[in-house]
Amino acid sequence: MSLIVQKFGGSSVSDAESIKRVAKRIVATRKAGNDVVVAVSAMGDTTDELLDLAHEVSPLPDPRELDMLLTTGERISMALLAMAIKSMGVEALSFTGSQAGMITDAQHGSARIVDVTPVRVREALDQGAIAIVAGFQGFNRDSRDITTLGRGGSDTTAVALAAALGADVCEIYTDVDGVFTADPRVVKKARKLDRVTAEEMLELAASGSKVLYIRAVEFARRHGVTLHVRSSFTHDEGTWVISRTEGEEVEEPIITGVAGDLSEAKITVAGVPDTPGKAADIFTIVAKTGANIDMIVQNVSAAATSRTDISFTLPKSDAEKVLTALRAEQADVGFESLQHDDQIGKLSVVGGGMRTNAGVSAQLFTALKHAGINIEMISTSEIRISVITRADILNHAVQIVHTAFGLDGDTEATVYAGTGR
Amino acid sequence: MSLIVQKFGGSSVSDAESIKRVAKRIVATRKAGNDVVVAVSAMGDTTDELLDLAHEVSPLPDPRELDMLLTTGERISMALLAMAIKSMGVEALSFTGSQAGMITDAQHGSARIVDVTPVRVREALDQGAIAIVAGFQGFNRDSRDITTLGRGGSDTTAVALAAALGADVCEIYTDVDGVFTADPRVVKKARKLDRVTAEEMLELAASGSKVLYIRAVEFARRHGVTLHVRSSFTHDEGTWVISRTEGEEVEEPIITGVAGDLSEAKITVAGVPDTPGKAADIFTIVAKTGANIDMIVQNVSAAATSRTDISFTLPKSDAEKVLTALRAEQADVGFESLQHDDQIGKLSVVGGGMRTNAGVSAQLFTALKHAGINIEMISTSEIRISVITRADILNHAVQIVHTAFGLDGDTEATVYAGTGR
Repeated sequence: MSLIVQKFGGSSVSDAESIKRVAKRIVATRKAGNDVVVAVSAMGDTTDELLDLAHEVSPLPDPRELDMLLTTGERISMALLAMAIKSMGVEALSFTGSQAGMITDAQHGSARIVDVTPVRVREALDQGAIAIVAGFQGFNRDSRDITTLGRGGSDTTAVALAAALGADVCEIYTDVDGVFTADPRVVKKARKLDRVTAEEMLELAASGSKVLYIRAVEFARRHGVTLHVRSSFTHDEGTWVISRTEGEEVEEPIITGVAGDLSEAKITVAGVPDTPGKAADIFTIVAKTGANIDMIVQNVSAAATSRTDISFTLPKSDAEKVLTALRAEQADVGFESLQHDDQIGKLSVVGGGMRTNAGVSAQLFTALKHAGINIEMISTSEIRISVITRADILNHAVQIVHTAFGLDGDTEATVYAGTGR
Repeated sequence: MSLIVQKFGGSSVSDAESIKRVAKRIVATRKAGNDVVVAVSAMGDTTDELLDLAHEVSPLPDPRELDMLLTTGERISMALLAMAIKSMGVEALSFTGSQAGMITDAQHGSARIVDVTPVRVREALDQGAIAIVAGFQGFNRDSRDITTLGRGGSDTTAVALAAALGADVCEIYTDVDGVFTADPRVVKKARKLDRVTAEEMLELAASGSKVLYIRAVEFARRHGVTLHVRSSFTHDEGTWVISRTEGEEVEEPIITGVAGDLSEAKITVAGVPDTPGKAADIFTIVAKTGANIDMIVQNVSAAATSRTDISFTLPKSDAEKVLTALRAEQADVGFESLQHDDQIGKLSVVGGGMRTNAGVSAQLFTALKHAGINIEMISTSEIRISVITRADILNHAVQIVHTAFGLDGDTEATVYAGTGR
């Protein structure tokens, strides 16, 4: 008997019909002789609708209250899913984040898991029941308040449960067949990957591949959780995300995939005095807002003025609070102005084989140059190169690069109905 | 400084605009120098919509999961209300039933409060914040599960909090101006009562007056909580529900009001063997379902058959489960058939002065007879007489009786938009 954790996103449970379909799938896994734990997201667009309501009653909703509000979404879907399963004659019990022992820090809106104590989940399994856990949410012991893990938090919930329970596999159900060399909605000839290392998956997730969220992949890699990303519309194998153990040889392609990301904005702090510690001052202010900074570029200072510009990218949703925080400290830091650009796109190529293959950067820049695409910022890691372009030509750039690196498949990828997670 | 508990029903918080209006009202009470605790219902029709969803995924939704599902409604409204208040610059904290210490028994769907330990509510008040508490919900300590108090549970939440906190008054906001001699939607010349005893209110609530729920009135009477039923659309005084202390003389009108109730159904257990203990058998079966029985009538047994019929009324929503339970035991009990009638209406006249005034029953029956209205069942208490009629003539009967007892006012009552609670 295996212990399987299954995660279903919002598009898989968007209405009563799809909830019943998911329930059937879960019941089939149970009847095949497995213990099953399910992490579930809010139905369809529930979270966005609740966010809209919050902004209608308050320009800047209180973070504690916002978490209380948003966590109702997963409670609705988990209770409905448990009911649907029970009406098929199989025992099921739903648990909120706090009931499932998802202990987090107190950072409302993007809390981090500090401990997982799934006592009641284990009790449910011991009784032969399927445990349904609300994704995305946790509980802070000190404040006794409900928290949320941020967007994509249901993936993290699933992986954290899989790690804590020692699950054999954590299945992430989505509306595509697995992980692709590029988003099949953008690149028609994108190929499904049968397997990918956790390291590569991490870079893909960080680069805007929405199939898995970065924190979930990080968590899986750190705890050696095997992920299986697969379609909730078929029973085909999807993509296995494997954690490579020390010394193990894995033959890696030079380039695993190309990712595009339109979720970031660029903030430029212009006219920063070129004196020691100013960058530290700025990023201390930014860090206090809880925003996640991605790329940072500091221009060479203009000799005449002894002032420099610092640009960084961050999730669009964090931009407003960072701008507010920086404006409040403008006099202290002494910069001249702030610029906000939300029309940027990020293109990344990822591949473990890059380590041992020089010239990937050159190949990327050449392909973009031939297509007349301008590069505004560059950042690299050991197995990834990312560049910032204008937002409106990002998809075109991804297609160009996918072809340039010889990733195009022979057939077109299947894309199912539904778009979100 | 007074401590005021305010309860707002679903029609007072049906959308973002009305939530902001309620928030303003609460803030005004706080700024007038009072400590304020608020109990809030789910927005508009949320509870009914969630119930519909539950029935779409499961013919007979699991009670534990149903409570988990339904309690999200109040969590949404309380979080939005707290946000709205905070955005007006006043501190506010929302609490779920369990966070507010509403400890109940384990009867999902109609749990009873066994203890109220509002530690966090007190802490919030001590910090100068307004405490917003989710109505309708509680927490069972043994199962560690979330429970609901049944329909009208938000009134009970408000009164229980008022009792536990020693509040000066519990204000119940509604879409009418207070308690009337009859439903102003049915009887145009119904008069608002300035004050009513808790005892009379209890009978009115039990008789279908929807302005206050019976369990809330019971709780208020038992704990000496002063209720003030008033409109959320005006600042006028409403109706004060006073707990009469021992020996206090209150001049009571003979008839306080007339109530109509369309929420009940009648079940007849036909052909019950006329042997000792059969009624006990039947009502033991019914009690196990958790259904609340109202009126009971047992016919004289037909001598030829030694069998009798037992009829009782109960909330329509409980009928199906009671019928199912009885059918399952039909062979054991030995009755012949079950009849289900959901087209009944209940008319009640209530008044503390009835105690010392004979002839009220005769006056009621005469009025109904002159109007050609047939009476199917009768039940009485010390200060109430109720009769069952056909559902379609109930409103007419209420109007006739209101006039017959001289309750008609000189002007028409104001009825506001919105119908529910």
